[in-house]
Amino acid sequence: METVSDPTDLTIAEAAERLRTKRLSASELAAAYLARIERVNPLLNAYVTVTTERALADARRATDEIARGDHRGPLHGIPIGLKDLVDTAGIRTTYGSKVHATHVPAADAVVAQKLARAGAVLLGKHNTHEYAFGVTTDNPHWGATRNPWNTTRIPGGSSGGSGAAIAARLAAGAIGTDTGGSIRIPAALCGVVGLKPTYGRVSKAGVFPMSYLFDHVGPITQTVEDAAIMLEAIAGYDPGDATTVRVPVADYRAGLRETASGLRIGVPRRLAIPVDPSVQAAVDAAVETLARLGGSVVEVDLPDLPMDDAFGLIVAEAKEIHADTLAHRAGDLGRDLQRYLSSPVGDALWMARALRHARDYTTSVRTVLETVDVLALPTCSVGASPIGADVVDVGGTEMQTFFAMALRTAPFNVAGLPALSLPCGVTPDGLPIGLQLVGCPFDEATVLRAGHAYEQATEWHRRRPAV
Amino acid sequence: METVSDPTDLTIAEAAERLRTKRLSASELAAAYLARIERVNPLLNAYVTVTTERALADARRATDEIARGDHRGPLHGIPIGLKDLVDTAGIRTTYGSKVHATHVPAADAVVAQKLARAGAVLLGKHNTHEYAFGVTTDNPHWGATRNPWNTTRIPGGSSGGSGAAIAARLAAGAIGTDTGGSIRIPAALCGVVGLKPTYGRVSKAGVFPMSYLFDHVGPITQTVEDAAIMLEAIAGYDPGDATTVRVPVADYRAGLRETASGLRIGVPRRLAIPVDPSVQAAVDAAVETLARLGGSVVEVDLPDLPMDDAFGLIVAEAKEIHADTLAHRAGDLGRDLQRYLSSPVGDALWMARALRHARDYTTSVRTVLETVDVLALPTCSVGASPIGADVVDVGGTEMQTFFAMALRTAPFNVAGLPALSLPCGVTPDGLPIGLQLVGCPFDEATVLRAGHAYEQATEWHRRRPAV
Repeated sequence: METVSDPTDLTIAEAAERLRTKRLSASELAAAYLARIERVNPLLNAYVTVTTERALADARRATDEIARGDHRGPLHGIPIGLKDLVDTAGIRTTYGSKVHATHVPAADAVVAQKLARAGAVLLGKHNTHEYAFGVTTDNPHWGATRNPWNTTRIPGGSSGGSGAAIAARLAAGAIGTDTGGSIRIPAALCGVVGLKPTYGRVSKAGVFPMSYLFDHVGPITQTVEDAAIMLEAIAGYDPGDATTVRVPVADYRAGLRETASGLRIGVPRRLAIPVDPSVQAAVDAAVETLARLGGSVVEVDLPDLPMDDAFGLIVAEAKEIHADTLAHRAGDLGRDLQRYLSSPVGDALWMARALRHARDYTTSVRTVLETVDVLALPTCSVGASPIGADVVDVGGTEMQTFFAMALRTAPFNVAGLPALSLPCGVTPDGLPIGLQLVGCPFDEATVLRAGHAYEQATEWHRRRPAV
Repeated sequence: METVSDPTDLTIAEAAERLRTKRLSASELAAAYLARIERVNPLLNAYVTVTTERALADARRATDEIARGDHRGPLHGIPIGLKDLVDTAGIRTTYGSKVHATHVPAADAVVAQKLARAGAVLLGKHNTHEYAFGVTTDNPHWGATRNPWNTTRIPGGSSGGSGAAIAARLAAGAIGTDTGGSIRIPAALCGVVGLKPTYGRVSKAGVFPMSYLFDHVGPITQTVEDAAIMLEAIAGYDPGDATTVRVPVADYRAGLRETASGLRIGVPRRLAIPVDPSVQAAVDAAVETLARLGGSVVEVDLPDLPMDDAFGLIVAEAKEIHADTLAHRAGDLGRDLQRYLSSPVGDALWMARALRHARDYTTSVRTVLETVDVLALPTCSVGASPIGADVVDVGGTEMQTFFAMALRTAPFNVAGLPALSLPCGVTPDGLPIGLQLVGCPFDEATVLRAGHAYEQATEWHRRRPAV
């Protein structure tokens, strides 16, 4: 076998090719990741649970299977981590909470089952904002996850453990969840790729809910190609999740062979949301790159998100989901949960009206999407903010950290559209900047194609933090 | 041209073939329907508005287009009616209400646009239960629609005008809406075919809502083939309706060429819902016919519908939709609306919990559907009940008419599944009985295929009332 200096440097696609051609074994690869986790995780706190024994057993099985010629596909033998909101049979799954600190699910979430069936190796569970309710992954029970680019900074959230793990090469791929940006925000702040698929594309069965209306499950990876590989493995109708849709799943990786030529790129006219000049400049340059690759750029007008309605709906659902905890163990919830769940909500008429506003917003955004192939805009207003900072300076304007991170991501949760974040630059203090690409419902293929074309033409995804 | 004794006897497919081959002109066909409407509608009150001028103009245009060789497809020149819940530009659209008695929409509903684009000829607007809120089409403002099989009986509802019109050959095809059974119930009681497509399959933009959560738009026709023709014309993603899904639309008519051979027919074990013995016998015989055609019959267990939750959700949405009317013109609402809209509803937590129960029910039903291709069960518990009867005898048990009609249809509104009703027998007093076939999400093709195979093997769809 060829000696790879550090196989954790490989993308999923690269590692898969070495596994398939037996230049690398799944056991070697898992051992390399476990060694790195042991060394680096104490600095970052990306994992709340490392499943060493399970990883070694999964890897041994994959090694044997591949050795006897049974190579199942590009995830066979690939070490991954799951946000600790995703149920894993027999493995503690805390949902980032104290209430579920000793919770051991009886069954895998559907997405965990699908990855296991594809041959992935489970390294462990990634830290999350408590019950996914926030954008910092500053967890009151399990500690803050730290950004690998600057350990005084947040990794973003709520899938911050996954974002940090991918950036620091503590997993080849990860599964996060996204209710208002929780996959894309950590992807942007950690300088990796995060994909929120279309609402209904990936089963949420066995993933602890934050909001049934706006929750999405998707991959966090080093490259767009790796996101395509993971999406294909986890996508599809699941009768056990009433929100999934019986739509054909594409060969997303094959679709990447097409170029960006002919793509209509919609650029929202300057929104009334502050943005750091370095972020805006990086995204403007990214749009220029896409244009140079053959895309045509169109200015579009996006409607205003009915934020109060969307937030109210999430709170109403969360209060129902956490009703028992609020009644009996409210003191075991952290500050953010306490605050969010104490927000008042209205009656059923208010909720029906909020749902109507969310639908009206959705039709407006989808109507804009009829005129372009993808939207291109910043993922977040700024780079990673300091851990513990409730407010952040955005080009001279003070904003709540929550809004600085989520105001451009949450719209596409409400509208249910596929949205990808990928690295496109760096702030003056060396922190990653994320480009967000948004597509038509169930057209992940085009979003991935645009992202891949951009990635192939640039080097941002090759930058690695020195941890 | 060949002389057709009465072209209103033709199905859409038959008339389309004669139009295409110029053995019949669209103008002749429209004239025959208009003459029949003039004679028969006063007995039935199926139409609240007959658009004679528009029909003649549509037909003239279709006649000219076809004459010069521009035959657009199987709906070109076909006379249809629309439930008066469907907006028509420049044509009074009452929603069955006094409040909207003089309402003239500025734009066509998307479904009306699509049918016009397919070349259909608009005969007029069909009577409906007020704002679709009931199963009898006994309309307090526009009068009761009468069942063509027995004019002392209800046609079912809320799309009762459409059901009666198709049975009495006052239109070749119709568009109804279905929130708890409102397409399938009139189809069953009038002895015609009604298809509620999958939730998300057909745009509801421009159709007055009863409940955004459970509303569906679909065709009412004489045959399954005609339903396939109409579905293909109206199906598809619409960015203007947030609930539509971007799923490919099949060639439903071509799919009918396949037989019922190999279909797994799921028959729910006797439900705890009373059923008239003649209805049960007819449905049992229909299942035997499907088995003889090569289907295999499997007994399945359906979960109990959370009726209080579903009804509460509909009421909550309706109270929001009609908030202005309730505040300012409540006295202009009929008895049924007054009663439904005075039901109390809970707070947003109650609504979030009701939504959860609806989702849980959906996953249970969809999980059952994974084991079969279609479910087969009665559409209604009984044949058409007397106009004005709030209760009805069901094999010795007294039931509210609403429940006798809707208890077996509403489940598939909650679960969002495609459901077809087609004639399968006759009660001792000569009234039609409906067989309901239910399929997997977005698998209308299989439901139509099963229904068509049954229809080809039987004569029930050929029975016509003597009006």
